[in-house]
Amino acid sequence: MSTARASVLERFRQPLVLRDYPLPDRLAPGAALVRTSMAGICGTDVHLWKGELPIQLPVILGHETVGRIERLGEGLDRDWSGQPLKEGDRVTWTSTSSCGRCFYCAEKRQPTRCPERRAYGIGYRCDEAPHFFGGYAEFHLLQPRVHVFKLPDGLSDEAVVGAGCALVTAIHGIERMGIEWRDTVVIQGAGPVGISALAVAKTSGASKVIVIGGPKHRLEMAERFGADATIDLDELPDSARRLARVRELTGGHGADAVVECVGAPQAVAEGWELCRDGGRYLVLGHYCDAGPQPLNPHVITRKQLTVFGSWSSEPRHMHSALKFLADRPDQFPFAGMVTHRFKLEQADAALQLVSRWEAGKCVIEP
Amino acid sequence: MSTARASVLERFRQPLVLRDYPLPDRLAPGAALVRTSMAGICGTDVHLWKGELPIQLPVILGHETVGRIERLGEGLDRDWSGQPLKEGDRVTWTSTSSCGRCFYCAEKRQPTRCPERRAYGIGYRCDEAPHFFGGYAEFHLLQPRVHVFKLPDGLSDEAVVGAGCALVTAIHGIERMGIEWRDTVVIQGAGPVGISALAVAKTSGASKVIVIGGPKHRLEMAERFGADATIDLDELPDSARRLARVRELTGGHGADAVVECVGAPQAVAEGWELCRDGGRYLVLGHYCDAGPQPLNPHVITRKQLTVFGSWSSEPRHMHSALKFLADRPDQFPFAGMVTHRFKLEQADAALQLVSRWEAGKCVIEP
Amino acid sequence: MSTARASVLERFRQPLVLRDYPLPDRLAPGAALVRTSMAGICGTDVHLWKGELPIQLPVILGHETVGRIERLGEGLDRDWSGQPLKEGDRVTWTSTSSCGRCFYCAEKRQPTRCPERRAYGIGYRCDEAPHFFGGYAEFHLLQPRVHVFKLPDGLSDEAVVGAGCALVTAIHGIERMGIEWRDTVVIQGAGPVGISALAVAKTSGASKVIVIGGPKHRLEMAERFGADATIDLDELPDSARRLARVRELTGGHGADAVVECVGAPQAVAEGWELCRDGGRYLVLGHYCDAGPQPLNPHVITRKQLTVFGSWSSEPRHMHSALKFLADRPDQFPFAGMVTHRFKLEQADAALQLVSRWEAGKCVIEP
Amino acid sequence: MSTARASVLERFRQPLVLRDYPLPDRLAPGAALVRTSMAGICGTDVHLWKGELPIQLPVILGHETVGRIERLGEGLDRDWSGQPLKEGDRVTWTSTSSCGRCFYCAEKRQPTRCPERRAYGIGYRCDEAPHFFGGYAEFHLLQPRVHVFKLPDGLSDEAVVGAGCALVTAIHGIERMGIEWRDTVVIQGAGPVGISALAVAKTSGASKVIVIGGPKHRLEMAERFGADATIDLDELPDSARRLARVRELTGGHGADAVVECVGAPQAVAEGWELCRDGGRYLVLGHYCDAGPQPLNPHVITRKQLTVFGSWSSEPRHMHSALKFLADRPDQFPFAGMVTHRFKLEQADAALQLVSRWEAGKCVIEP
Repeated sequence: MSTARASVLERFRQPLVLRDYPLPDRLAPGAALVRTSMAGICGTDVHLWKGELPIQLPVILGHETVGRIERLGEGLDRDWSGQPLKEGDRVTWTSTSSCGRCFYCAEKRQPTRCPERRAYGIGYRCDEAPHFFGGYAEFHLLQPRVHVFKLPDGLSDEAVVGAGCALVTAIHGIERMGIEWRDTVVIQGAGPVGISALAVAKTSGASKVIVIGGPKHRLEMAERFGADATIDLDELPDSARRLARVRELTGGHGADAVVECVGAPQAVAEGWELCRDGGRYLVLGHYCDAGPQPLNPHVITRKQLTVFGSWSSEPRHMHSALKFLADRPDQFPFAGMVTHRFKLEQADAALQLVSRWEAGKCVIEP
Repeated sequence: MSTARASVLERFRQPLVLRDYPLPDRLAPGAALVRTSMAGICGTDVHLWKGELPIQLPVILGHETVGRIERLGEGLDRDWSGQPLKEGDRVTWTSTSSCGRCFYCAEKRQPTRCPERRAYGIGYRCDEAPHFFGGYAEFHLLQPRVHVFKLPDGLSDEAVVGAGCALVTAIHGIERMGIEWRDTVVIQGAGPVGISALAVAKTSGASKVIVIGGPKHRLEMAERFGADATIDLDELPDSARRLARVRELTGGHGADAVVECVGAPQAVAEGWELCRDGGRYLVLGHYCDAGPQPLNPHVITRKQLTVFGSWSSEPRHMHSALKFLADRPDQFPFAGMVTHRFKLEQADAALQLVSRWEAGKCVIEP
Repeated sequence: MSTARASVLERFRQPLVLRDYPLPDRLAPGAALVRTSMAGICGTDVHLWKGELPIQLPVILGHETVGRIERLGEGLDRDWSGQPLKEGDRVTWTSTSSCGRCFYCAEKRQPTRCPERRAYGIGYRCDEAPHFFGGYAEFHLLQPRVHVFKLPDGLSDEAVVGAGCALVTAIHGIERMGIEWRDTVVIQGAGPVGISALAVAKTSGASKVIVIGGPKHRLEMAERFGADATIDLDELPDSARRLARVRELTGGHGADAVVECVGAPQAVAEGWELCRDGGRYLVLGHYCDAGPQPLNPHVITRKQLTVFGSWSSEPRHMHSALKFLADRPDQFPFAGMVTHRFKLEQADAALQLVSRWEAGKCVIEP
Repeated sequence: MSTARASVLERFRQPLVLRDYPLPDRLAPGAALVRTSMAGICGTDVHLWKGELPIQLPVILGHETVGRIERLGEGLDRDWSGQPLKEGDRVTWTSTSSCGRCFYCAEKRQPTRCPERRAYGIGYRCDEAPHFFGGYAEFHLLQPRVHVFKLPDGLSDEAVVGAGCALVTAIHGIERMGIEWRDTVVIQGAGPVGISALAVAKTSGASKVIVIGGPKHRLEMAERFGADATIDLDELPDSARRLARVRELTGGHGADAVVECVGAPQAVAEGWELCRDGGRYLVLGHYCDAGPQPLNPHVITRKQLTVFGSWSSEPRHMHSALKFLADRPDQFPFAGMVTHRFKLEQADAALQLVSRWEAGKCVIEP
């Protein structure tokens, strides 16, 4: 029995630790063993490291991963979209699976709320076999019924990991809210989710997309991704002035649709004001529970807003994302979002860099 | 030139005053003069009397009114739905009109947000001719392009005023959110809007409608209107226990749709919890601005809620409401909601009674 | 090894034949063996018997079945909605299952178009083990991943089989088209699908439901189910006069929504005319391919119609149907649709009776 | 009293005749007199000339017109979107107005089905004052409540007339059916409506747009407008081979959405086959009544299609169209569709040229 290395979160806010775990001798039918090529470090990993989400330790972090198939379990011969799979194929996968049969999956068609979902890189203890359910490791195990996607040749690891879980999150959220070709859109936040929402909004034909955020290098990224206007929080730190600027850019009315990609408490109250009457608002950045905030429900009534929430994503959003990345590499340079590369043994340093929110996308290449 | 009497709000929180104003000698084309039969006292009138909404005084209150046509201006020979109109016909009307040509009317199809809207009984000073733009008066003037509805014989004044603006508000709001025949529904609030929302939800085929509110006589009214279950705030004053009760009644999941008809700040936070994941929430009771409240946007994201707002109503909702009242008088006894009748000179006493939220519907019969 | 009897379709348009097949010694994990209590004879069975649909013989017909669990395979301990299952429980089930992973299941969310679907009573040869995949038999096998529904005590076999596949078909179709509480609705056809569509339309709050069909006893059934008006094809054999009558009943405009439950070629052209401009049309009765018919697409353009199609149903529609039958037995007496009962050895006679379209629902009680 | 010239259709299939009519001395409040700069010749004009639509003669044809304001009636000081209007402004307008108050306008929100609509260039006899209600003339009168749009400086007459009524028709139709950013789309027809639908589909983010049509120069135009693939009817005259080609281009499934822009009878049956199961079909080209065709409703049921119709357009679609033309002149070179220019006295020759369907857009510059 051989072993492989993983970088393990054993205690919150403490350095990650390199550990060796045994690789499985044999795979269950439908399972797969993947040799990790590149694992993204998501902002959520920082929240997990800080203990801000309820998880059990120890854990191998990493839920945005690309690798090559090392071994295939019996019966796993096609990927999610029906393409043949073989050893050596370059793949990615969804970090969770829904059961397909529960109240939320089968009756209410809200599979992202299936209570059986557990995420690779988040919800699996790694001190129990088969250990390898996270990206920060030399190998990654995929359980039976996992959703594997074979990557086309022209689609780089950097693009897939650069887009990461932000893009599928944005695709799902915007699917729920809808953006139509004539819409004026405001994106609150220029981080990975904001940039992804911008890309989807532009592709949906939004007539004007305004990105509010910072710091400057992120707004420059937004411009590279096609933002029609940007509002720099450092230059307009006053909410009332940002509102005035958005109205000026939208014929005095506010935007048809506003996407919150910030997660910070004060964004939502401002965002409701940025909508025109009858407008739509998507709360997309509040994955962590920052607690109650002062919000005025009278605004929803008076302005006839519709406010949407969206959680995680389904496999079909991953399928869309990969096709999207392959189709528009020049228009939306997600691969260029990867700014720093680390070895597995540097995983802790990488996480620290991300936690200062200064870098672009950091990745681990074991 | 003859005159007529009106009960006038001249100063906030001061008694209404009886005044005489001249009736117009002639009507503009498309206008009408109506002799008031019955004028409802809406909860909004209390807020107006207290000065909680930005209006100019003096004002003749009353925006839920039935009367008989006294005189018709040139060209006004059909009601909104095309029925012939003549003097003596019993009618009601929408209290506002939209312009039909502005950004919100014509481009965004949100006519209730037309900036030209001004409401009878709220937005017209009565010290300027032609004075009679409110219900608490012997006569009511209807301007050109007003939306008049001839009342069928079987439909009583009491039913129309008993339903009042609450029913059209509920119809519009539920149209925006949607209630489908299999839905489980919670109504927060057992006042006029809550009872109206209950009636529309039952008619839409909701499989279970739970009304949360009080005091007891209002919940009894809710039961007469078909509530499948009621939760008495006096008996379950604790929000967590109400949530537990709703979950118990909805298979453990929460309701498919929740309608807020309270207006009180704390209702919305509780209401989001009452929804199942992927559920829908309608903020319908926050016509007044009670200011920001502690609300957690993470709940919208995590539960994948959709939150709808709805403001006022369109003429087609009035048309629906009148047909609804005429079609289902036994199932939904709106006429029975009228509990107190007053003469015009008692308008102030009537308003005071309503302000204590103890009576059913109070009406003025000039 | 014991055996059980089945009534088998061996040759098209020939009498069904009684055969003995061996019962399985053991069940696969997740499978079940059910002792048939009642099997419905659907109009589709007549088409199958005539060879009008492409199936392989021999087949045990019957896809609307109720029975008691005789044996449960390992791991099958809950029904579709999570209720515990044990031997002796009274159950029904969906006749098909979708794979959950293909293009139509997972990407386009059209599981009824899953290419892996095969229906009990239609798509399984019975000369191959395990034989018992149809209702006209003493026993019925349920494969792993089948969707089983435990029946509540108050819900009779007659109600479940009386509603049969017509009700789930109608629920699915009307879900796609939408019927809202103020809609005027025309149902074309008073057979089982038409009666089911009527029941769902009434429950959805349709303000008026008009049923066009015949013969008279079916229209009387429609009246028992709440039809606001019926139009007898025998009395108004002329399409233009039926159109005039529908217009008269709908304020001159035509209906908001029309549901085709006939299957006969000429119904669709007439149905488009019965819609008001901007109306909705549901083609629900064309399960068999009657070939091209003269239809005018200009009508769709000019009247701005939306025409919906709907195929079969999903398990959640069965769940809705059973709850619906249990909740409203008095309003919608589906149990009363069962007019004739037969023993298993009379299956052929029963099928002949149904093929003359004169009886109500015929059932087999093995 | 001065006069002006118009080219008049006096008898079907006969040459247009130049006539002089008196210009009005004074304008009604809200009306306007426009000096025609450019009038488009629409394919509909050919149908009108042939007498294929029920109109009264004599008529000044032309419903796609640009001009400069010569005189403004009292009170007309703003265009549809609120911009100030003055003499000399370059404008276009909608050819019809809805009443805003009828069953279809106010209750059912289908203003294009308002029975009061009459179109300039189609529905007004020109032998009655004030005569000038068509584009083929030196002047054009605009009635009170007409929808006037001031043209921005960068937007050429050629772009506006080149897009003509085809673009607003496509915008309305696609609004009804919906095209979302991942959709695969087939456009049947490469005429003006097809090219417009292509432009809107590309802008909506369709992942692949396939245009079926001919002759070759039209398909080249489609490629200039961004078609991802074209299918030449001359090269693939067999419907089955076109279906095979579309399936090949759409992963074997057929397209998510198909837009019919042909008007020819056989297109619809083919189009339903081109949709994937669960797909959407828009009948957009059947403005003329070509009579019933062989169509199979079983296909709608089995494939779970949704088929949409759309008639004409609303003013807000014109507003969208003009903004669209101004925003994307390089991507969608509508101005380049104008291939032939004629003087007013050559109007008949122009119409003949269009009737042979060989030219691009022909325009009259009086």
